[in-house]
Amino acid sequence: MFDKIVPRSEDYAKWYTQVIRQAEMADYSPVRGCMVVRPYGYALWENVKAQLDIRFKETGHENAAFPLFIPMSFIEKEAEHVEGFKPELAIVTHGGGKKLEEPLVVRPTSETIIGYMYSQWIQSYRDLPVLINQWANVVRWELRPRLFLRTMEFFWQEGHTAHATHEEAVEETLRILDIYTDFAVNEAAIPVIPGRKSESEKFPGALTSYTIEAMMGDKRALQAGTSHDLGQNFAKAFDIQYLDAHQKQQHCWTTSWGVSTRMIGAIIMTHGDDQGLVLPPRLAPTQLVIVPIVPKNRADDKQAVMQAVDGICETLNGVRYHVDDRFDYSPGWRFNEWELKGVPLRIEIGPRDLSNQQVVLARRDIPGKDGKTFVPMDNIAETVPQMLETIQADMLKRATEFRDANTFEPESYDEFKAVIEDGFARARWCGDAACEDKVSEETQATIRCIPMEQPDGDGECIVCGKPAEEIAVFARAY
Amino acid sequence: MFDKIVPRSEDYAKWYTQVIRQAEMADYSPVRGCMVVRPYGYALWENVKAQLDIRFKETGHENAAFPLFIPMSFIEKEAEHVEGFKPELAIVTHGGGKKLEEPLVVRPTSETIIGYMYSQWIQSYRDLPVLINQWANVVRWELRPRLFLRTMEFFWQEGHTAHATHEEAVEETLRILDIYTDFAVNEAAIPVIPGRKSESEKFPGALTSYTIEAMMGDKRALQAGTSHDLGQNFAKAFDIQYLDAHQKQQHCWTTSWGVSTRMIGAIIMTHGDDQGLVLPPRLAPTQLVIVPIVPKNRADDKQAVMQAVDGICETLNGVRYHVDDRFDYSPGWRFNEWELKGVPLRIEIGPRDLSNQQVVLARRDIPGKDGKTFVPMDNIAETVPQMLETIQADMLKRATEFRDANTFEPESYDEFKAVIEDGFARARWCGDAACEDKVSEETQATIRCIPMEQPDGDGECIVCGKPAEEIAVFARAY
Repeated sequence: MFDKIVPRSEDYAKWYTQVIRQAEMADYSPVRGCMVVRPYGYALWENVKAQLDIRFKETGHENAAFPLFIPMSFIEKEAEHVEGFKPELAIVTHGGGKKLEEPLVVRPTSETIIGYMYSQWIQSYRDLPVLINQWANVVRWELRPRLFLRTMEFFWQEGHTAHATHEEAVEETLRILDIYTDFAVNEAAIPVIPGRKSESEKFPGALTSYTIEAMMGDKRALQAGTSHDLGQNFAKAFDIQYLDAHQKQQHCWTTSWGVSTRMIGAIIMTHGDDQGLVLPPRLAPTQLVIVPIVPKNRADDKQAVMQAVDGICETLNGVRYHVDDRFDYSPGWRFNEWELKGVPLRIEIGPRDLSNQQVVLARRDIPGKDGKTFVPMDNIAETVPQMLETIQADMLKRATEFRDANTFEPESYDEFKAVIEDGFARARWCGDAACEDKVSEETQATIRCIPMEQPDGDGECIVCGKPAEEIAVFARAY
Repeated sequence: MFDKIVPRSEDYAKWYTQVIRQAEMADYSPVRGCMVVRPYGYALWENVKAQLDIRFKETGHENAAFPLFIPMSFIEKEAEHVEGFKPELAIVTHGGGKKLEEPLVVRPTSETIIGYMYSQWIQSYRDLPVLINQWANVVRWELRPRLFLRTMEFFWQEGHTAHATHEEAVEETLRILDIYTDFAVNEAAIPVIPGRKSESEKFPGALTSYTIEAMMGDKRALQAGTSHDLGQNFAKAFDIQYLDAHQKQQHCWTTSWGVSTRMIGAIIMTHGDDQGLVLPPRLAPTQLVIVPIVPKNRADDKQAVMQAVDGICETLNGVRYHVDDRFDYSPGWRFNEWELKGVPLRIEIGPRDLSNQQVVLARRDIPGKDGKTFVPMDNIAETVPQMLETIQADMLKRATEFRDANTFEPESYDEFKAVIEDGFARARWCGDAACEDKVSEETQATIRCIPMEQPDGDGECIVCGKPAEEIAVFARAY
């Protein structure tokens, strides 16, 4: 059933695709660039969605659904927006057997159609703020598709809000950046760097874009979520106005923000190892697999072991567990499958364990003997949830240490060019796009973000030597 | 803010659209035929989804996501399927700035693309059954769109399963029909009739289609969910085969089944009255609204009333409530709004109630004084959940009585033609499509279903007088 997975050190890209397909997370479809998210991958996505959705609702957001199709003329109303998205559009030209008068765009993102609806719904300052999110599929034409990272159709949430003042819109943008950071760090165990995008990397049509950036296992960066202060750009393009308390017409200030199925790719590449996936316990569809082991033709043993397994299951309050009682597969084969699928914790239990009143508890994040302990049967109900929390914390710690060990602070441009081969570079940047372009041309690295947390003082731009107030994080990125 | 809603008796279609738009359930979009589901409507849909999803998962189904786009050649592989759907397709001809070699269809339903994937995934009898559902948007070109009932894009779940034997596939089809019936009756308070579709009304490509049919407030029928036994039609078209225990290749037997945002339309039209929506408590986004009432400029009273409101809220365990403290709107205005929105229960509380240690509890399903009771403050925590259950039960009872009062058992074709103007007709049918066609031409009524529950004995076809084993339900339908 399982082919050997190529080690990450040998071919990271191949490892990534093999793990996803063999763990049955996702598959390519016959439509080039479109993926199928299989049940195991979708269960992970459901957990991601649930955790984000709770946070959105706690902060006053509501879900809704806007149309899949957008008139071409809408996309063209905001100049930067159309320039950014036009090359990636999928276009419906025929419907109901007829050629359409105006072609319809399959939404690449929904600022335009939602902006139009907001212009209909918002009249007075009393209608503000409008805080709406949608969970949706979007389409952007992709020439080099990769599962979860760049697919023609992908799944995401896109929040779209409208406010009376710029100050409130900025607050909202940063509130969401905090939510994304909190989710990534505390649920996905991914130590992201929240920061601001440079002008050249911001969303087409935004005043300012914010991002969370993560380091993958091959030391490349991945943008895992973005939050945009759209200023009044879309409000002016779509005439989103309100009557203020002094009976004056004002344009709204809007924001948009999104996290997509890319997050699944980030989880895979942050934590995965040469055996396969390693899923953070809080998001893992299955947190614990119980593998009963019985020698062949030992019906008595089997009954006793399964009785003990039932007893364990009854005590496992709130743990998402699965019992793998496929006795016609060897224990080793079953272990491999659940390791490949990244289940955080495994209980092994056989007749000898039973007579010793204990089980083997094996951690996925620490392979081999080092990750195995014997646990008395009586302690399982407490040990399992504790161990899941320990694994969650250790995964975050390990990912943070890996990122920090591969983040450099070069002091010259020559040193910069050397270290950027091996990870992230934190360096001062003067803010000039010319310096950014030079780096990109000479090293393929881009500014991933200007981190929200900045050191005191100032210094010189790593590229041109001119005064530079801010530190930027540079890296090669997905 | 609110325009007067036209009474149902005057213009049912207009009432329907006005209620939806004024209650902010949904809105038309600038793309003809596409709707926007607004937060209040979407919250109802989320509750519908959650209740169905629990039932699917309890019966072993998993969620996944398949591509939005389907190659045109796939749609053409199953002869009846292409004939049924071709006139309704939206077609993408351009992507990424280029004309596509093969046009892509925006999925009207996903049997074909899922069938293709199943042919890749299924090898052995050990891989069966495959029990997958997806929550998705689909597109069918609509010339006469109506919010929730017929929109170009709509939202639904579509289950797709593959089995080793026809018997298992039939079992699955009927298991889902039971789930749909249970959901409609017990959550949506809609007394649906589960039954079989006639040949002319079945899904294009199915062996047999099953349906749940409901009576709307204007006595027309609405198909609220369908479950299809697809036989081996799609397995043969897409080569979905498995190796059985005797090492022989066999074609799978597949099913598909769906409930869509039409269900929202069914809820509106089953329970709504001339004041607006009436939502069943189990699905209502807000089950209880608390309206504090204080005369103007009475700060002391306000503080005391709000303190009592806080006290009530603390005791409301598990009730989805909302406090409407917009004191700049009159009580009457606020009552109207929540009646329009169909919130099942309302608490009114003012200074006088406070001194009497009681509140007014007003039922949405019984308008005016008859639906109001005084409840001692101390009893609210018990009374509210009980009252919500009572409302739920009464709504089902009322809808059942309405349906039964408007269901006739004509004994001649002349009588049939008379009663079909006023509701459902239960009558024997010989099974001949010619009789069905005649009814449809002469009365605009169709066979909604052949109910699963049949009386004993047999009789004569209501149309041709030939022997007829089964009773069918005839009605004009949405």
